[in-house]
Amino acid sequence: MEKNKNKQKIVTIGGGSGSFMVLTGLKKYPVELSAIVNMVDDGGSTGILRDEMGVLPPGDVRQCLVALSQSSQTLRKLFNYRYSNGGLGGHSFGNIFLSTLEKITGGFETAVVEASRILRIRGYVLPVTLKSTRLVAVLKNGKKIIGEKNIYCCKNDISNLKKLYLKPEAELNPKIFKALKEADKIIINPGDLYTSLIPNFLVKGLPEAIARSKAKVIYVVNLMTKPGQTDNFTLSDYISHIEKYLGKGVIEYVIFNTEMPDSKLLKKYAKHGEKPVTPGDFKKISGAKLLGYKLLSHNIYKADKNDALSGERSFIRHDPHKLAKIIYNL
Amino acid sequence: MEKNKNKQKIVTIGGGSGSFMVLTGLKKYPVELSAIVNMVDDGGSTGILRDEMGVLPPGDVRQCLVALSQSSQTLRKLFNYRYSNGGLGGHSFGNIFLSTLEKITGGFETAVVEASRILRIRGYVLPVTLKSTRLVAVLKNGKKIIGEKNIYCCKNDISNLKKLYLKPEAELNPKIFKALKEADKIIINPGDLYTSLIPNFLVKGLPEAIARSKAKVIYVVNLMTKPGQTDNFTLSDYISHIEKYLGKGVIEYVIFNTEMPDSKLLKKYAKHGEKPVTPGDFKKISGAKLLGYKLLSHNIYKADKNDALSGERSFIRHDPHKLAKIIYNL
Repeated sequence: MEKNKNKQKIVTIGGGSGSFMVLTGLKKYPVELSAIVNMVDDGGSTGILRDEMGVLPPGDVRQCLVALSQSSQTLRKLFNYRYSNGGLGGHSFGNIFLSTLEKITGGFETAVVEASRILRIRGYVLPVTLKSTRLVAVLKNGKKIIGEKNIYCCKNDISNLKKLYLKPEAELNPKIFKALKEADKIIINPGDLYTSLIPNFLVKGLPEAIARSKAKVIYVVNLMTKPGQTDNFTLSDYISHIEKYLGKGVIEYVIFNTEMPDSKLLKKYAKHGEKPVTPGDFKKISGAKLLGYKLLSHNIYKADKNDALSGERSFIRHDPHKLAKIIYNL
Repeated sequence: MEKNKNKQKIVTIGGGSGSFMVLTGLKKYPVELSAIVNMVDDGGSTGILRDEMGVLPPGDVRQCLVALSQSSQTLRKLFNYRYSNGGLGGHSFGNIFLSTLEKITGGFETAVVEASRILRIRGYVLPVTLKSTRLVAVLKNGKKIIGEKNIYCCKNDISNLKKLYLKPEAELNPKIFKALKEADKIIINPGDLYTSLIPNFLVKGLPEAIARSKAKVIYVVNLMTKPGQTDNFTLSDYISHIEKYLGKGVIEYVIFNTEMPDSKLLKKYAKHGEKPVTPGDFKKISGAKLLGYKLLSHNIYKADKNDALSGERSFIRHDPHKLAKIIYNL
């Protein structure tokens, strides 16, 4: 809970994994952090808890809490622990924890505050909305896909997407107005464009609040494209998609990677239709300053054996510390 | 973590509910508390976690931790929260918490220490053994019943019990030697005779350590009999059964209830074959001082709607504060 006026105030916007990475890097700097987190997840452990307990989605919030935790390694490991079988199979402990706290305290916001205290987090985790809502995609052929989990991956090709919206409509978490008003920097985290980033901008009031803020708006572009969603996307594609929601000229800086990943890894990714995001034609991008850096992590990624998805999880990753240094000094 | 030498050092021995009651009362007094807890539970939420996660039984330990917690009401409610449906149905949050901590820290003892810290408990909770073991009952007709859950209730009539033992054999948690050596008072808590109390005394080393201790050994007798197990048991029956394991003369004080419960409640209990424990023939009891008091709780008991067993749970209960006062002043 730093209230030092000299500290940079940084607000990040994103989903789970991308926010985890950005926050992990930034928390080592003397900054005041607030993490705005999308609330449309309805797959996996989070989806089961939403259905069975009638709670708001805990998964992405959990990742941000763990990223900002100053607590013991044990407590952080506990929050990320994933069960391998039985009735608990697929759940992560932190998700169960947050959902149970929500039931006891009567609200997700109180649960996040209580969990923040227990995990001794540096900064604030702010669910983008406190309303239970689902992501809906309408394709150009008229097909409607309901639920983030159905849009997220593989089942549906949404490359011919016409429109995304939230049902029911959702209002911005009131605490976010103040955070954005006071922010020095707003970071749009890397993450799945349609299921992690844009669902934030669909919440009523967020685009306007970002536009009103005097903060520098910095967008950190993904390393890899996502098949069936952002195939062959270049920088300008990502930017223009986000600008549809935020308005032209709102993004001031674009941080992108200039380092080519290991060719073996690239081949592996190519099998799943994932390719590096290429800069493309810079002329198409007006307004934003383009900042290219070598951003790849060269740490070996240890997969979690209890995580059913780990085989598909990303080995080509941002280095949180390289990225944080750039953001801090910008 | 009180190390004041002037404080009474009290060690309790029991299972879940009875220990919860005794500890809840005693923690208001300036005493140093250690709770020895039986480790044979293999039913309900605890049984599922043992089977699915390969952990030691968390349920009774959880109840003792909550009893001794000085933490917020929220955290204590969280630990006792019970899920009503889905894959989590029947589990209590605290059980899941302890079992997951055990997986992460690599041992139940470390998990209990970590949980004690998080719950800010006053005193120590000591699992009677750190070995995974099961309770086995052999009946006079030669029938063998394996598992506490099968002995506990209703499925089997064990009134013609020949022998109880642990399989595999289990050694005493080493920390218990010191606690008993330094104790001023040892309380044998009320609880199910065969499935909560005696399973402690079956652990190698505990009876001898109690006999060696200079502490006053005080036995708090149950209020009601248990059908199929302790039908028509009087004080002397309870005492003589425990003395089979502890030896004659070890129990110095017996605290029992002299107050008759409400007749409506008695009728309800009688339907399930449960009757008040009567004093019986005092002449049969040699050595122990018999202390009769009005011990009933007159608080209305609120059943937990998510607890499948709550309909069968006891409304005739000890008043923890009346009992604690007697123990403290003894």
